[in-house]
Amino acid sequence: MFLLIGSTLTYGEDWKAFRADPKRMEERILKLSEFGRNPEGGVSRVAFSDADIQGRAYISSLMEQAGLKVRVDAAGNLIGRREGRSSQLPAILFGSHIDSVPKGGNYDGDVGVIGALECVEVLNQQKFTTDHSLEIIVFSDEEGGLAGSRAMVGDLSEDALKVVSHSGKTIGEGIRAIGGDPEKLATAKRDPAEILAFLELHIEQGGVLESEKIDIGVVEGIVGINWWDVTVLGFANHAGTTPMDKRKDALLAAARLIDGVNKIAKSMPGRQVATVGRIQAEPGAPNVIPGKVVMSLEIRDLSKAKIDQVFGDVEKLAEQIAAETGTSISFASLDVTAVPAPTDERLRKAIADSAHDLGLTTRLMPSGAGHDAQDMARVVPTGMIFVPSIGGISHSPKEFTRTQDMANGASVLLQTILRLDQKSAGL
Amino acid sequence: MFLLIGSTLTYGEDWKAFRADPKRMEERILKLSEFGRNPEGGVSRVAFSDADIQGRAYISSLMEQAGLKVRVDAAGNLIGRREGRSSQLPAILFGSHIDSVPKGGNYDGDVGVIGALECVEVLNQQKFTTDHSLEIIVFSDEEGGLAGSRAMVGDLSEDALKVVSHSGKTIGEGIRAIGGDPEKLATAKRDPAEILAFLELHIEQGGVLESEKIDIGVVEGIVGINWWDVTVLGFANHAGTTPMDKRKDALLAAARLIDGVNKIAKSMPGRQVATVGRIQAEPGAPNVIPGKVVMSLEIRDLSKAKIDQVFGDVEKLAEQIAAETGTSISFASLDVTAVPAPTDERLRKAIADSAHDLGLTTRLMPSGAGHDAQDMARVVPTGMIFVPSIGGISHSPKEFTRTQDMANGASVLLQTILRLDQKSAGL
Repeated sequence: MFLLIGSTLTYGEDWKAFRADPKRMEERILKLSEFGRNPEGGVSRVAFSDADIQGRAYISSLMEQAGLKVRVDAAGNLIGRREGRSSQLPAILFGSHIDSVPKGGNYDGDVGVIGALECVEVLNQQKFTTDHSLEIIVFSDEEGGLAGSRAMVGDLSEDALKVVSHSGKTIGEGIRAIGGDPEKLATAKRDPAEILAFLELHIEQGGVLESEKIDIGVVEGIVGINWWDVTVLGFANHAGTTPMDKRKDALLAAARLIDGVNKIAKSMPGRQVATVGRIQAEPGAPNVIPGKVVMSLEIRDLSKAKIDQVFGDVEKLAEQIAAETGTSISFASLDVTAVPAPTDERLRKAIADSAHDLGLTTRLMPSGAGHDAQDMARVVPTGMIFVPSIGGISHSPKEFTRTQDMANGASVLLQTILRLDQKSAGL
Repeated sequence: MFLLIGSTLTYGEDWKAFRADPKRMEERILKLSEFGRNPEGGVSRVAFSDADIQGRAYISSLMEQAGLKVRVDAAGNLIGRREGRSSQLPAILFGSHIDSVPKGGNYDGDVGVIGALECVEVLNQQKFTTDHSLEIIVFSDEEGGLAGSRAMVGDLSEDALKVVSHSGKTIGEGIRAIGGDPEKLATAKRDPAEILAFLELHIEQGGVLESEKIDIGVVEGIVGINWWDVTVLGFANHAGTTPMDKRKDALLAAARLIDGVNKIAKSMPGRQVATVGRIQAEPGAPNVIPGKVVMSLEIRDLSKAKIDQVFGDVEKLAEQIAAETGTSISFASLDVTAVPAPTDERLRKAIADSAHDLGLTTRLMPSGAGHDAQDMARVVPTGMIFVPSIGGISHSPKEFTRTQDMANGASVLLQTILRLDQKSAGL
């Protein structure tokens, strides 16, 4: 099966001319989009669904055609390995995911998987064998909570296996359905000593690169996410008989806080974001002053200190609003969805150098969304490459990334892998 | 059945000593509260329910015991008539309702019905026959939309009969269940020439009388109510990847408008109220910037011009907020729930004079809540008497009015009836 045994290329300068093939990538993205296609033209390929299983079979067949040694680990991660010249050296890992949100699009995750395959295809065409072994990882259940990457770093709990996923199956049942074995979950954990680095190519999911006409985003880290349930207690009363100055209107207090959260997040230098996305007012009748409001508060930043600073200001403002409006406002911190995960500075440089050699423009930027890379970053040097999302639209059938941008990303990924392989990145 | 035939009292000064009996009123309020009692100690006696039917049977039996001629009109209004000395004179009508909201209390409506019965009981004890005939009206389905009083003024539509009420029955079915006949609805309409005036005793449902330690509220009118659905359209996007300055956050715009509505209503002199009681943000996930918000806006005032002025200012502010936030904000006016219904100035004076002669303090005030009196006010001179609600709580099992306050209200109602009967009120 090892097509490349006997390949002869060494590290001259030829490797710098290696380029991803836009046409092949586009064909494969289109083919992959058939699995779980939704009426709006995107995919609803939630983890562990039949569509997910079919999509993984397609990717697995491409891996085999490319001569990779394919396996599914206990957590359901689909892994294709291309042996390097030296079995003593740690492997270079790269990949992403192919599961989607319900009513998702055709690029989130998929570009990183098709791009990873593209790197191998180009090396095969060039008959180029790297010193380090290469592994393409298709993580299981990214959208449901990074199950595959959590297991790979030894952090997927027994409790998490019981959570019911969008497929209707528990994560444990789902992992079994895609060929994993939840009872042997511990075997999915990788020894960091066996891994030189992890790289992930992904669409930006925001609109910064497109609006600034930049080709490649060099991700400086995946933001931390803190999440609170905010409860405002006032007093429900008759909207006709209660004068304006005798009200304890929980929705008025909530409204002032929503406006304040926005102002606080904007008032500080930096790229922190703060969002109230969910709100419920009770009793919720047009003719009753709301006595209770429960709403969400989410703050994201690359720095935990910044998240704490924003939240501290929000808390202070809440006290003031509560006093003004005769309400009480409390914050219940929920499970921290993610701690900030900075990428490896040496990998950032390798990515930027690769892009510049390819004539592509770059900018350093945080990832506001969560990715498998944030788990990997906890145990191995990790880098992440963004390509533009048109209109910044994501998690939607309208999600779109141009073919040339996908190919640019894959070329940068390939060049970065080859830099790492030469140990020129300082790793 | 006419116990009072042959009663001999005439209008000397003795009538001024007539007083309601607090003990009898309290006993009857307690007895009435058994029908539809809810676990919290109030009543869930929605119109047309078994509890409503049982409660009406109890009131009907009290009417009969008091010698009244009892009938149910085609709209289900329960009517007890006490003939006066002169069949040529128009009748004096007074009453309220005994149906409740779901999870309601024991005083809203009930005080007016028990108070009306009390007036008759005192006249019976005093063997006093009025010149005008008297009619106690227990309106059907007040809480569901003033069905009984609307029919009595000829304004209950065929369409309204098809509306499903809290009882599960349509209003038409419900009216039949309580002894009415929806096919003969037109017969429930009263000729205004047959009616001298309508008076309603009711709990305030607000906290003004209690907090100002005033015994009796002289209602200057029932406020008009305008109601809009407000739709804010922004753009739903990823809460992590969309920078603060690139958002079109519908909930942020809605929050600013909610705050603004409150400020506008407070900024003008007067007693207008404006309320946002219901809000829904879509998609409603903590990690998605809301793309759409739908919320209610309700404005109430005694003057239509003031309602228009408040709404005009809200519309202007909405334009400004929409421009600031990159959203659009639109207002859909719903069926006007009620136009402002001023009470009759002569009746206000008769009520206030009666209260003062009883040694009670009064204040002129609007009714922020809707009442059957607002329908009656469109066709006949109408007056309304408020008694204090403890804590201003209403539409709740915690609703409470002190026995002495109920009796004060009934005494004022009785004295006002007697003033009208003497034609001393200028009617």
